[in-house]
Amino acid sequence: MKIDVLSLFPEMFDGPMKQSIVGKAIDNNVLDLKLTNFRDFTTDKQNHVDDYPYGGGAGMLLQAQPVFDALEAVQKESNTKGKVILLDPAGRKFDQKVAEEFANEEHLTFICGHYEGYDERIRELVTDEVSLGDYILTGGELGAMVMIDATVRLLPEVLGNKESAPGDSFSNGLLEYPQYTRPADFRGMQVPDVLTNGNHKLIEEWRQKESLRRTLERRPDLLEDIQLSKQQVEWLADIKSEK
Amino acid sequence: MKIDVLSLFPEMFDGPMKQSIVGKAIDNNVLDLKLTNFRDFTTDKQNHVDDYPYGGGAGMLLQAQPVFDALEAVQKESNTKGKVILLDPAGRKFDQKVAEEFANEEHLTFICGHYEGYDERIRELVTDEVSLGDYILTGGELGAMVMIDATVRLLPEVLGNKESAPGDSFSNGLLEYPQYTRPADFRGMQVPDVLTNGNHKLIEEWRQKESLRRTLERRPDLLEDIQLSKQQVEWLADIKSEK
Repeated sequence: MKIDVLSLFPEMFDGPMKQSIVGKAIDNNVLDLKLTNFRDFTTDKQNHVDDYPYGGGAGMLLQAQPVFDALEAVQKESNTKGKVILLDPAGRKFDQKVAEEFANEEHLTFICGHYEGYDERIRELVTDEVSLGDYILTGGELGAMVMIDATVRLLPEVLGNKESAPGDSFSNGLLEYPQYTRPADFRGMQVPDVLTNGNHKLIEEWRQKESLRRTLERRPDLLEDIQLSKQQVEWLADIKSEK
Repeated sequence: MKIDVLSLFPEMFDGPMKQSIVGKAIDNNVLDLKLTNFRDFTTDKQNHVDDYPYGGGAGMLLQAQPVFDALEAVQKESNTKGKVILLDPAGRKFDQKVAEEFANEEHLTFICGHYEGYDERIRELVTDEVSLGDYILTGGELGAMVMIDATVRLLPEVLGNKESAPGDSFSNGLLEYPQYTRPADFRGMQVPDVLTNGNHKLIEEWRQKESLRRTLERRPDLLEDIQLSKQQVEWLADIKSEK
């Protein structure tokens, strides 16, 4: 997979993208991540990439020209267009489905805004406006890193343990069940007996039921989006009657 | 503000937290950001911090002991407890209101999970379980950085231009209006006339109306959460009748 990032702060990517899953994907040539500073494409003599907003107001805006030219350069180099993603609060919400969609692409380009905003005409370049959530960040860089991490870990070549990804929260529409590791007693807090008795059928039942319980308690909205099995419907009724 | 981060990958924070707003807040002593590797607190002879899950299954889990001991150490050192935040898909959604709440605290501690999950008993330590959104990341580090960025930029001493933060998307419950900077004509795409005619009353009206329009088109759910003024209700009716 090829990922291009257009940013004024490519150094921000140094720490997070060299560690962990993304770093390994780069080392194993599964991911070709290229950072491009669009300041290198400005035609302004002082190398400015921002200017005052028309109509007045606080702050500076990113200009269209450096972003247009940088995008043309990276698309020409990779010879593919793929998805061009703008991180913006007005975009559709990033979620696990969007990550799966991104993971099926061959080429993604993230445009990271910064400062107080960007020239509206930059939206003409993009195929996908995506929002990380209802909050404001200093720039698009951290958002791009989050989306890259969530996407790259879904690539079949990346997660060493194939079983891990599908068991996560959201992958089956539910939150994950509680998990425990040694010791069995930690400061008086015990591991539930069922997990230590070796009965795999009971363990699997307990996990599925606790996954339903947690989803019901914390995120009942998720239950509306999935088709529950007959068994799950029965367990849900049990859980509700326990209250 | 004091922020502690407990993580197995403190180097991930190097790039993002040295740049931009967060880096400046550290340089100006507005933010005291301390990274603690809880691997330094393991009592395991091989320095392991993870172990197999009780009941079987794929992947490794973070153990409770190193996280408990690391948290006790940082709380003892700073002599405050403050909020202890666990990044978890089952937590309440991080949004601008949560960022504002965090910005009012004196001490935040983020616990970053990694690997396939963590021992359930770690939840006993935390005051706030928060989710970045409905997607799965390799670890809590990027999520912590996002929350730190969103929080720190709200500190009164941080954003140089005081006017900027309240005009952003979400700060008034609406998405931001379109913005333009020079040139007025870029590749045939024009800046709207109203922004170049110097009539500040008309500009302000246009902006408020476009902010409503974009919110209506992209995020009508946001309109349900705010109290609209009489003028805004009239504009909304205008916008709907234009369609």
